[in-house]
Amino acid sequence: MRALVVGSIALDHVITPVERHEGVLGGSASYAALAASFFAPVDLVGIVGSDFPGEHVELFRSRGIDLAGLEVAEGRTFAWTGEYSWDYNSRTTLSVEPNVFERFRPELPARYCDTPYVLLGNIEPRLQIHVLDQMRTPKFVAADTMDRWIDLARDDLTRLLPRIDLLILNDGEARQLTGQTSLIRAGRLLRELGASHVAIKKGEHGCLLFGDGRFFSCGAYPLEELRDPTGAGDCFAGALVGHLAKTDPPEIGFEHLRRAVAFASVIASFNVEAFSVDRLRTLTHSEIDARYEMFRLMSQIEAADLAP
Amino acid sequence: MRALVVGSIALDHVITPVERHEGVLGGSASYAALAASFFAPVDLVGIVGSDFPGEHVELFRSRGIDLAGLEVAEGRTFAWTGEYSWDYNSRTTLSVEPNVFERFRPELPARYCDTPYVLLGNIEPRLQIHVLDQMRTPKFVAADTMDRWIDLARDDLTRLLPRIDLLILNDGEARQLTGQTSLIRAGRLLRELGASHVAIKKGEHGCLLFGDGRFFSCGAYPLEELRDPTGAGDCFAGALVGHLAKTDPPEIGFEHLRRAVAFASVIASFNVEAFSVDRLRTLTHSEIDARYEMFRLMSQIEAADLAP
Repeated sequence: MRALVVGSIALDHVITPVERHEGVLGGSASYAALAASFFAPVDLVGIVGSDFPGEHVELFRSRGIDLAGLEVAEGRTFAWTGEYSWDYNSRTTLSVEPNVFERFRPELPARYCDTPYVLLGNIEPRLQIHVLDQMRTPKFVAADTMDRWIDLARDDLTRLLPRIDLLILNDGEARQLTGQTSLIRAGRLLRELGASHVAIKKGEHGCLLFGDGRFFSCGAYPLEELRDPTGAGDCFAGALVGHLAKTDPPEIGFEHLRRAVAFASVIASFNVEAFSVDRLRTLTHSEIDARYEMFRLMSQIEAADLAP
Repeated sequence: MRALVVGSIALDHVITPVERHEGVLGGSASYAALAASFFAPVDLVGIVGSDFPGEHVELFRSRGIDLAGLEVAEGRTFAWTGEYSWDYNSRTTLSVEPNVFERFRPELPARYCDTPYVLLGNIEPRLQIHVLDQMRTPKFVAADTMDRWIDLARDDLTRLLPRIDLLILNDGEARQLTGQTSLIRAGRLLRELGASHVAIKKGEHGCLLFGDGRFFSCGAYPLEELRDPTGAGDCFAGALVGHLAKTDPPEIGFEHLRRAVAFASVIASFNVEAFSVDRLRTLTHSEIDARYEMFRLMSQIEAADLAP
C-alpha cells in the first residue's frame, strides 16, 4: 500500500569533526520519504523554494516518490546549519532559515487523502493536525516530534496524541514531555496520553516500543564507521511506516510493528554511514536483507534451556 | 563446576539522589561472588578487617560460598564512599580508604588452585596476575578492570590479556584502553591484544560481546525503578562466570558465552533494584528464570519473512 510522508525539505550545511558539506539535501520529509521508498510507494508532501536543485527532485522521482504534493514556492528553500561534537553524540544548530517553509500550509492533492499509511514527519504539531484533518480514513498514522514542539506547542501535540497509532520521539524528548526519568514509565505515560503505540529512540542504543501490554527492546545495529548522524531518526520513522505499508496486514499487530522497527533500525544504520542521503542513493534490497538477518542473529538471546 | 572469585570486599557509603546508606556490604568480590552463587558453588578470595560485620560473613555462607580464601586481617576493612548524580548516570568517588586492602597479597588455599572457572574481579592487575599464577589449569579465566588500572597499570593489564579468555570492561574503559571511539573497533583491538573474548558493558544500554569472528549485541533489561547502580558490573561478571561454571560444556562455545552474558544482564538488573547486595538476599531462581524469558522475548527481532 502507499505511504504518505509530510515534513520539512531542507538544504543542510553539516559540519562533523572530520568534514563539512554545504547545501546537501536534508529535512525530515526527504530522509523519511527516501527511507520509506525502499518498502512502499510514497506520496510526498512538502515545500521547497525556487533554488531547490533539480537533481534532488530527480532523486525523489528515481525512487518512485509521487511529487504531486511537493509545492515549489517563490523564494529560498528551508536552510539548516548544524555541527556535531567530537564524538557525534551532541549537535549544535548554528542557524535555521525557514524561508519558504514559513508559508507551509499543506493542502493534499485529492488522491493523497485516501493513502492508508501516514507519517506526520517532524514539523509543527498544528501542521501535522492540519494534514491529518484532510485524510479520510487512514489505517495507520505515525507522528514524529522534537524538543522544540514540546517546548513551544505542547497543547497541539497533546491534541494530536489521541489521533495517532504511533508516537515516535527520542529518549530526551520522552523525558521532557512526561517529566519521567525512567523510559519505561515515560512510554507508559505517553500511551495514557492517547498514542496507541510509542517508539522511544535511544540513538546508537536502539529503541523501545510500547504497545497495549506489550514491549519490545530493539538494539541498534552497531556501526564501525559513523559519518553523518543527520536524518537517522527521520529514516527510522520513514522506513517504519514504509515497512508497515508494504506488509499491510488486515490487523496491524505488535509483531508487525516489531518487525517494522527492526527494519527501520537497519535503514537508519545505513543512512549514517554517508553524508546527507547519499547512502540511500546506492542502497539495495539485498544489502538491507543481509543486514537485517545479521542484526537479528546478533541480537538474539539464546533459550535458557540450550543444551550444554 | 566451582567458580573462584577474587576481588575487593568493602564497606560502602552510598549516596543517591534519594537516599544514603552507610557501611553497607560492597566491593567487587562481594557482588561477584553472590551473583555467581546463583549458578555455581563459589570459592571467595579477599581480605577484610577485624571490623567486618559477622552478618556479611553469614550472608556469604548462606549462599554456599567457600570462605577458606577470605583473610581477616587486623585493622579496618576497605571503605568506599560514592555519590550518584541526579539521573544516576555518573558517579563521584568521595573517598577511598584501602585500609587492610593495601596489604592484600592473595595466597590461594591449595584446593582453590584447581577451580576451573576463575573471575579475576576488579583489582590491581598485578594482583590478578598473582592469583592466576597460582591456578593450575583453569578452564576459563575472565578478568574485569577499570579506568584506574588503565591509567596506572597499563603494562600489567597488557601482560594479563593474552592469559585470559574474557576481558570485561565498560565502554569508556574500552575507548580509554584502545584510543578508539567506535566500540566495534575497540572490541576487535582488545582481542588483538590477546583476550580471546571481550565483553564491553554499556550500563543501561547493554553489552557487546566479541569472539573469534562472532559478535553478540545484548540489550539490558529495562528497569522502571533504579535504586543503587553500585556493583551492577561486578554482578554481571560474577553471574557470567558462574553461569559458565554451571553449564560447563566440554568446549566453551560462543553460544554458551552469549547465554551467560544474557543471564549476567538479568542478575545485574535485579541487583540495582535495591541497595548494596540487598536484592540478592531474596532473589529466587524462579524470578531469574522468569525475567530471563521475558528478556529473551522482548529482545527478539522477528524473522524477516514473518507472514503478514
